[in-house]
Amino acid sequence: MFITLEGGDGSGKSTQAEILESWLTALGRTVVRTREPGGTEFGTEVREIVLHSRGHISPRAEALLYAADRAQHIATKVRPALERGDVVVQDRYLDSSVAYQGAGRVLDAGEIRNLSLWAAEGLLPDVTILLDLDEDVARARLDGANKRFDRLEAEKSDFHRRVREAFLALAAAEPERFLVVDAALPPEEIAAVVRARVEELLVRRSQ
Amino acid sequence: MFITLEGGDGSGKSTQAEILESWLTALGRTVVRTREPGGTEFGTEVREIVLHSRGHISPRAEALLYAADRAQHIATKVRPALERGDVVVQDRYLDSSVAYQGAGRVLDAGEIRNLSLWAAEGLLPDVTILLDLDEDVARARLDGANKRFDRLEAEKSDFHRRVREAFLALAAAEPERFLVVDAALPPEEIAAVVRARVEELLVRRSQ
Repeated sequence: MFITLEGGDGSGKSTQAEILESWLTALGRTVVRTREPGGTEFGTEVREIVLHSRGHISPRAEALLYAADRAQHIATKVRPALERGDVVVQDRYLDSSVAYQGAGRVLDAGEIRNLSLWAAEGLLPDVTILLDLDEDVARARLDGANKRFDRLEAEKSDFHRRVREAFLALAAAEPERFLVVDAALPPEEIAAVVRARVEELLVRRSQ
Repeated sequence: MFITLEGGDGSGKSTQAEILESWLTALGRTVVRTREPGGTEFGTEVREIVLHSRGHISPRAEALLYAADRAQHIATKVRPALERGDVVVQDRYLDSSVAYQGAGRVLDAGEIRNLSLWAAEGLLPDVTILLDLDEDVARARLDGANKRFDRLEAEKSDFHRRVREAFLALAAAEPERFLVVDAALPPEEIAAVVRARVEELLVRRSQ
């Protein structure tokens, strides 16, 4: 089973991944927790190029590097784990690429999706948990509440609003795959909703 | 004007690029000579990852890294040169990717072509010079004639034969873009054929 967590920074993906892993492990499942970008040594090297070259790297070159990271990560870490019957819990996957590219409006989101799917040989998650957070709550969590809200901050806020809308549009387009949860809820309440969905899938699989 | 040179190793691409550059420079044209992979600093870093990880890198990850190199090279070096009105003379481009992938038979050659074209925003050369070399002549040039021909060498020879066939098939599919020259001819004879084709293009452009 392949589970991905999506959402903006500060939406609580790591916390939920940890709770989910503990619960699945207690049920006797072997869990592989991983992330993109950077889930392999190769990915770390690729990421260093992107960070090192920032500002001088063309948008398509950057997208292709991230796709290369994805290809390597899925081929060498995720697929072998799924073939062993492990549960993979992954922080960010192709929906992040599509949402952030779409929000940035440099490259076409559909092309980014196709590129990602080619990289991953078509692998889609069994369930994608979208931790949806109102941008003002996200800001407050990340910045503290009493920071000045200047023009740059306003632009950032606009960007985060577009990322959120892009994630919600992806979820609306694939309601079977997505579980959208209000990330402003207490972590244990979110975890209970997530557990219910994963349990349903586990039962369906064992039938 | 964008001119690419293609063909196997030992077919004389560097020699022809040099002769072509001298002639164009003498005509008063500004020439940018470049190569793939590795025509930029970024490309050199990408290439290091590929070489460093060889054997542990998934085929799609490798193809995507080469496409990233291409995207960066075309966006930051080739397109600006073409926009300035310079002539770009490039050693290997998308036809090499397609021919070598097709010969290796791991990934679909058509998909590699689409990936390359996406990376390069559809840029195709005005003329592609294919230096076509009989594989036995190529072997003799590269190895010296009196080396043992073992199983590994036979496999290599078979691979080179498939690369050559793939290049010839690409040339046959786009006769307007390709100029196929017998690479076993003396360099100056090849250069004369190349010059005739490039001159024809220059004249057509100036009309």
